[in-house]
Amino acid sequence: MSKQTKYLLDDSRIPEAWYNINADLPVPLDPVLNPGTMQPATPDDFAPLFPMSLILQEVSSERWIEIPEPVREVYSLWRPTPLIRARRLEAVLDTPAHIYYKYEGVSPVGSHKPNTAVAQAFYNKDAGIKAMTTETGAGQWGSALAFACNLFDIDLEVYMVKVSYQQKPYRRIMMETYGAEVYASPSERTHSGKGILAQDPDSSGSLGIAISEAVEAAATSGGSKKYGIGSVLNHVLLHQTVIGQEAIEQMEMAGEYPDILVGCAGGGSNFAGLSYPFIHHKITKDLDTRIIAVEPAACPTLTKGKFTYDFGDTAAVAPVVKMYTLGHTFVPAGIHAGGLRYHGMSPSLSALVEHGLMEALAVGQLATFDAAVQFAKSEGIIAAPESAHAIKVVVDEALKCKESGEEKVILFNLSGHGHFDMTAYQAYLGGELEDYAYPAEAVAEAMTHLPDVS
Amino acid sequence: MSKQTKYLLDDSRIPEAWYNINADLPVPLDPVLNPGTMQPATPDDFAPLFPMSLILQEVSSERWIEIPEPVREVYSLWRPTPLIRARRLEAVLDTPAHIYYKYEGVSPVGSHKPNTAVAQAFYNKDAGIKAMTTETGAGQWGSALAFACNLFDIDLEVYMVKVSYQQKPYRRIMMETYGAEVYASPSERTHSGKGILAQDPDSSGSLGIAISEAVEAAATSGGSKKYGIGSVLNHVLLHQTVIGQEAIEQMEMAGEYPDILVGCAGGGSNFAGLSYPFIHHKITKDLDTRIIAVEPAACPTLTKGKFTYDFGDTAAVAPVVKMYTLGHTFVPAGIHAGGLRYHGMSPSLSALVEHGLMEALAVGQLATFDAAVQFAKSEGIIAAPESAHAIKVVVDEALKCKESGEEKVILFNLSGHGHFDMTAYQAYLGGELEDYAYPAEAVAEAMTHLPDVS
Repeated sequence: MSKQTKYLLDDSRIPEAWYNINADLPVPLDPVLNPGTMQPATPDDFAPLFPMSLILQEVSSERWIEIPEPVREVYSLWRPTPLIRARRLEAVLDTPAHIYYKYEGVSPVGSHKPNTAVAQAFYNKDAGIKAMTTETGAGQWGSALAFACNLFDIDLEVYMVKVSYQQKPYRRIMMETYGAEVYASPSERTHSGKGILAQDPDSSGSLGIAISEAVEAAATSGGSKKYGIGSVLNHVLLHQTVIGQEAIEQMEMAGEYPDILVGCAGGGSNFAGLSYPFIHHKITKDLDTRIIAVEPAACPTLTKGKFTYDFGDTAAVAPVVKMYTLGHTFVPAGIHAGGLRYHGMSPSLSALVEHGLMEALAVGQLATFDAAVQFAKSEGIIAAPESAHAIKVVVDEALKCKESGEEKVILFNLSGHGHFDMTAYQAYLGGELEDYAYPAEAVAEAMTHLPDVS
Repeated sequence: MSKQTKYLLDDSRIPEAWYNINADLPVPLDPVLNPGTMQPATPDDFAPLFPMSLILQEVSSERWIEIPEPVREVYSLWRPTPLIRARRLEAVLDTPAHIYYKYEGVSPVGSHKPNTAVAQAFYNKDAGIKAMTTETGAGQWGSALAFACNLFDIDLEVYMVKVSYQQKPYRRIMMETYGAEVYASPSERTHSGKGILAQDPDSSGSLGIAISEAVEAAATSGGSKKYGIGSVLNHVLLHQTVIGQEAIEQMEMAGEYPDILVGCAGGGSNFAGLSYPFIHHKITKDLDTRIIAVEPAACPTLTKGKFTYDFGDTAAVAPVVKMYTLGHTFVPAGIHAGGLRYHGMSPSLSALVEHGLMEALAVGQLATFDAAVQFAKSEGIIAAPESAHAIKVVVDEALKCKESGEEKVILFNLSGHGHFDMTAYQAYLGGELEDYAYPAEAVAEAMTHLPDVS
């Protein structure tokens, strides 16, 4: 075949270090605040939640952080992931653009999430921790941490948003197959959960509530359990940078460099994973690469939110960070991209948008599934609803190239497959999918509950 | 990392020809019979069902059949697939055996089935065919052909076993996402379906009935529709030999040669795909490689069936072939490995077992899921219930090596992931999974309905 489709790297090319954006931010991040005192948090404040090794990564400004060999060995079960040229999509769109995607759906759980789950499990094990807690929405993160905890022989309890626990049992079963215990949230196991249930016994839960429960379960365990988090925090985002580092090498194999990078952004981890190593280029080599975070119109944190201090969770027990937020009490509409239903955004990613080093776009649910089905029919892969948000913008940009005649190189992160999300496609094909406008009133109301950090 | 986990090949190493076992069989296969006349079928007898190019492949005795470039180009979306050393499973079993698996679950639909689906869609398109029909059980084959037909712009109607249509909607939605029309079988669309429904309006269907409907829909279309088949026939098996050819090259990269090959066998396609290129070695190089087909105890075609002429389908409209069979009226118990619930077995594979070039083992459902969960917890991948049958025998053989101290090299085909089969794992984890003994009486009864070919 004259035309190459895939660019593969062997085990030896798994990156040896994670890239830490803190080393290259235009200005340092504002401090994280202790939710109790509203004063800058010290590493000790985080000690009930995370092992010290991860806390030090969280606040580190070292540019490169070595990846431990046991983590690289687990990565080798599926990493390096393929970089694929979407030639069939290009042909269908009749665009001169060159479209590439980094495919993270080849991991055992079908998404990018294990990149940090494995690292977190390793550092917890290394610190002698025998049990962890976490929350999960539809289950992508929970299944990744269940996979990782099992490999490092750590017990895991997962607080899963109740509506997903009931309606989407497949990822719950996956977590249980890996040996995790899964509880519908809100639960009677925590003070936060009991409080919500006292107000509303039929609460279907939310990610914010589930975070509150998982954080509380770790913080009140007397040190026997630590908490694992799937996005937002810096140590999570840096673990994901293996994606972008591999992509840089694979784009070199293809003899091209992206003009445009695209990824979906909920808390920011898959987007940062692809884009931060390119941000490093952008800053140090003074490139003008466009870097676009795509979010749902129903939860437009970066495009409509405020860059300010807010809680990471609904019950206000998680740390307070400076970020783009729609207000920690905001509950997004029930879009199928559960991983993008978060009121906030990673602080570093928020800062990069604020400083103009990347940009953000919000897209509607129907247009997103239009693009996802077009992608499935051309490239074969049925994308996760979250990843489909990136596809929508890629298609738009490729069609702009068709109009302008520009041969731009577009690279996006296909962060996961949609094999657990077929009911979303069913709703789309059945004409039952709803579009949601920007929820201006609900956001305005939530903004009145921002913490006072003056 | 000193220890390599994955062995990858780039696009250029996608095989350029399929391997045809017919060239190397110890004795030629007995002729296929026309189900109407019980006389040896001519290529023209198949013409209502298949394009002539596939019929000629079916009867060819050429050893190598060139893979058309457009087929190789589609293969490049996911092929070559990785060969993975199961080091973590080896460690858990504490075995000196070296365990490798060829992982076909990386295809867009999550199984090996597209290897032949893409080829069949290509040859139909090349013959000017605009519509195809097929049957599917739980949907693995149907989704593969839906994926392939979409790429070659062919309409597809799928007859899906009714109980799966109702209880396992996810793969149905996948087929519909690729644009296929899916009907619950038995349906009112065919004579065969109507006949079954007249006898039993509540029939939950079977693979044999669905085959009858799909074959009839093509045969009575006046030439406008052809039929696609997912296993059993020679042209299907030969398309799968890309698996084994790649594995041979990847085992060379690993510096080893398998002592034991293992695969699950329903109709035989994934097993033949891995093993036939090694059979070529075994015959031409006089090797003593053990080659083991694994089937469910509930449907033990090779281990308990008879090597004789039988119909390929329940309604006796499909061709009559010499094969191991439990009788075409035999309906296996409702095990979760739907792809292994077939009364017959590929004729060439049957002949190779009969001639002692490969062997067969039957395993129970509970032991199979024990092994699958052990594999998921060590290697991370949740296997399809079909593929899990191979894992069970691999674990057994590896434990024998532990006892004997032998450092055998075991290679198996992990033909698909189980992300669409989580309810099976749920039943297992919940202690609700049934084991089924050999259904001796039902088989004896079915054997009384074998066709008279004297």
